[in-house]
Amino acid sequence: MNPNGNPYPALSVPAREIPVPSSVSEQAQAILALGPLSPPVEYPPLDDAASWRGMIAAQAQAIREMTGGSGSTAGVRVEETSVDGACVYVITPDGIGPEDRRVYLEIHGGAFIHEGGEVCRQRGIDNARRIGARSWAVDYRMPPDHPYPTPLDDCVAAYRALLEQHRPEEIIIGGPSAGANLAASTILRARAEGLPLPAAAVLHSPVSDLTGSGDTRRTNLGLDNILTGQSMAPILLYAAGHDLRDPYLSPVFADFRPGFPPTLLLSGTRDLLLSDTVRLHRALRAAGVAAELHVWEAAGHGGFLGRAPEDEERTTEIKRFIDKHWAALR
Amino acid sequence: MNPNGNPYPALSVPAREIPVPSSVSEQAQAILALGPLSPPVEYPPLDDAASWRGMIAAQAQAIREMTGGSGSTAGVRVEETSVDGACVYVITPDGIGPEDRRVYLEIHGGAFIHEGGEVCRQRGIDNARRIGARSWAVDYRMPPDHPYPTPLDDCVAAYRALLEQHRPEEIIIGGPSAGANLAASTILRARAEGLPLPAAAVLHSPVSDLTGSGDTRRTNLGLDNILTGQSMAPILLYAAGHDLRDPYLSPVFADFRPGFPPTLLLSGTRDLLLSDTVRLHRALRAAGVAAELHVWEAAGHGGFLGRAPEDEERTTEIKRFIDKHWAALR
Repeated sequence: MNPNGNPYPALSVPAREIPVPSSVSEQAQAILALGPLSPPVEYPPLDDAASWRGMIAAQAQAIREMTGGSGSTAGVRVEETSVDGACVYVITPDGIGPEDRRVYLEIHGGAFIHEGGEVCRQRGIDNARRIGARSWAVDYRMPPDHPYPTPLDDCVAAYRALLEQHRPEEIIIGGPSAGANLAASTILRARAEGLPLPAAAVLHSPVSDLTGSGDTRRTNLGLDNILTGQSMAPILLYAAGHDLRDPYLSPVFADFRPGFPPTLLLSGTRDLLLSDTVRLHRALRAAGVAAELHVWEAAGHGGFLGRAPEDEERTTEIKRFIDKHWAALR
Repeated sequence: MNPNGNPYPALSVPAREIPVPSSVSEQAQAILALGPLSPPVEYPPLDDAASWRGMIAAQAQAIREMTGGSGSTAGVRVEETSVDGACVYVITPDGIGPEDRRVYLEIHGGAFIHEGGEVCRQRGIDNARRIGARSWAVDYRMPPDHPYPTPLDDCVAAYRALLEQHRPEEIIIGGPSAGANLAASTILRARAEGLPLPAAAVLHSPVSDLTGSGDTRRTNLGLDNILTGQSMAPILLYAAGHDLRDPYLSPVFADFRPGFPPTLLLSGTRDLLLSDTVRLHRALRAAGVAAELHVWEAAGHGGFLGRAPEDEERTTEIKRFIDKHWAALR
């Protein structure tokens, strides 16, 4: 038996030297040339909440130092509101008036443990500027203090609150990585609770399978410059003993029929979560969902740090997709 | 300088044991468990035409022995015709009458050197059965005796002959691997010659970049169970000294604007030509073409030998796509 539970022997792949490809932009080449951008993280034991809190705080501090503290709010207005115990940043780009009914519910990533608070706010601002629409960025509560189902509950509560002010066809839900997992699960939960569903979903490199069975978690290990380790610790901390195959935890196992909205999925050929992305795409397609897949050459988890033309291309695809699904409102 | 012509050092990826993934069907697991299905091929020197002919004949003989000679024609009628020196098999599934105007121009694969003659005929029959439509399978002439541009000329001639009997919106062009390269180039050449363009294109794991710069040619080497080597020899034999970046040889460098038809692209996460596929998808999208990408988990070049549910899923996507683009005819 191998770790995947099947009786087959493993495939031996020899050590290799992988040159920086010339098939990406010069900017992307320069980023790939840096190699892995961080060492694989050593996570604390699951029951050592204090160490997890310390690690999470240190990471937040590192991001703060890297970005020079609180980012700019130029070009947007930010309000804070609270929904059922979770903070939501309501971000309105300049020039967007109350008659513009479009709203994007942004669910941040960060392996279910990072990128809350200030980072959530700043990424929400960046995203709202990029897509040119009002955004709600949910600062959902997270482990170790708030494992599953609290993070998902917070996202569902934010969606429910949005529905008090908006028709469902005005709402698009999206997020990266763990945020894409929560975005998909929020829609599944909304459906189960009888809520009307949003116009569309945007899933960047979703974590769709918390059992970690995706093949590229292994084949792309060492090639993805962003996700440099394959530890399941943050996932196990989030799941807190719940069945990892539960569709609210691993949406790749969900039944998307009926009603799941049109979905955009984005990944890269070096993404550790390419398998999670293409498998979710297949599951959506099997259910007849209008799901679109886009994969960028040699891109790791999340692309090229926003510094390459490929990242602009990604934004262009997202804008085209959301504009199409918001078009009926105009 | 590395082989890709950029100044960066290579990324060292250590040797690894890759288990058979549990994220694919049992049938696909059993095929992946076989490991590489053939050793990398040793090709003759480019100027040794006799050895190439011998190698190509031996491969044809091996396929003949494997499939037990001439395959079944049950359920179809096959006629042979000749277009400008190349044979075309016209395959009509039972029940398709003259009032059914749909026709699929199938361009076979085989690294620009293999799968002509009897194999072309049999694959054409299999494909016509699968899609349930009349097909023209072009037995284009090949190297070493007929290098570029003859193979492409033959495909363009077949398309031109089809246009004498069909309106362009009745025609869909497709093929796998080298055949997908020729399918894309046939459409580009037809456009340049002022011909009307077909309704759609179906490109399975296209060879889109004959310079071989695609990243997965290296990252998926040893993982793809079908394409087990990365020799460029057959490509160089085909190109016969022409510029490998010429868009008729490497359609990824083409300008697809205006008029290139809607295109379906299919690949797998272990496909050596995943990069060729996603880069062509991006080039088409950048030109505003309605191009759709589908990628199967852990699939190598061409899928799972037609023996897994994933292969049926691929057929389902193809049928949906072509039926949609033929729908106006009904």
